Amino acid sequence: MKRVIVFFADGFEEIEAISVVDVLRRANVHVDMCSITGNQVVVGSHKIPLISDMSINDANVSDYDACVLPGGMPGAETLSNSQQVKEFFVKMNEQGKLCCAICAAPMALYKFGLLTGKVCVSYPGFLDYDDVVHGTGKTAVDCNIITATGPAAATDFAFEILKALGYVDEANKISKGMLF
Amino acid sequence: MKRVIVFFADGFEEIEAISVVDVLRRANVHVDMCSITGNQVVVGSHKIPLISDMSINDANVSDYDACVLPGGMPGAETLSNSQQVKEFFVKMNEQGKLCCAICAAPMALYKFGLLTGKVCVSYPGFLDYDDVVHGTGKTAVDCNIITATGPAAATDFAFEILKALGYVDEANKISKGMLF
Repeated sequence: MKRVIVFFADGFEEIEAISVVDVLRRANVHVDMCSITGNQVVVGSHKIPLISDMSINDANVSDYDACVLPGGMPGAETLSNSQQVKEFFVKMNEQGKLCCAICAAPMALYKFGLLTGKVCVSYPGFLDYDDVVHGTGKTAVDCNIITATGPAAATDFAFEILKALGYVDEANKISKGMLF
Repeated sequence: MKRVIVFFADGFEEIEAISVVDVLRRANVHVDMCSITGNQVVVGSHKIPLISDMSINDANVSDYDACVLPGGMPGAETLSNSQQVKEFFVKMNEQGKLCCAICAAPMALYKFGLLTGKVCVSYPGFLDYDDVVHGTGKTAVDCNIITATGPAAATDFAFEILKALGYVDEANKISKGMLF
């Protein structure tokens, strides 16, 4: 069973975060919703409170195949400023594991030094740097880096992660089951 | 400000429920997430725990312009078997207020007696009755009844509710902002 960790700070975009957890769990991927705030309850940018599964203090790179950052403000900014999140992503990237971010959160991957020369996408305005290659679709997959544009791309993003984890048949089956 | 109540039982479909709350709150609609279980924490069908805003014991028809049932199992079945939810929807319907359901939950509207002769849609298999008129789209709007097919229709469902509440310009603006 593959294992995925999704990091949450207050002000996460609910559709983006929940779509990833929902779709991956439909494929029986183990997904941990991980709070980086010190509080188990994290509150989204539209005031929806979730109870996370664990704290970043208990998160080990060796336990996961992919790590994910949802967008939403100020959540994505908090994630991008976290030294713990940075160290986690840098180690995951060094081991060639999937590093994924959507909407405003690809700016965190950029700050962590993971996007140089990579094809990637974000919500407009969040990746205005010369040393990234801007993709043209709703999602971009370049080696172990998966990025997506915004709420409308949330399920596409989830399916790209699922396929990159090796669940191609499940992704197609689940997509049909969800009436996409 | 318009006011909407979304009812939650354990086993709600997270994308369907959250998309409605997220989109409506983007338009500054007042949305209450209302637990019908007696517990403030409600757990989705993919094991995501949410903290609801209120209990159905404190819900008054006079406070709301629309009521919404998310799908997901066994959540939709629990909603459809709730006498309190039934009484709420019957009163809302009598007053011509919006009664909305997605995925498996239109079966609840049917059980409550709200769908006779109405054009409506659901997840395949949940509205196999002779006295309803099956729509062909991802959503159906017939007078005060709004229904939708499943997770892939969750944001469409939310935008139909928003427009039916009178927020047409906001719906278009928010849709663009979400990159639809």
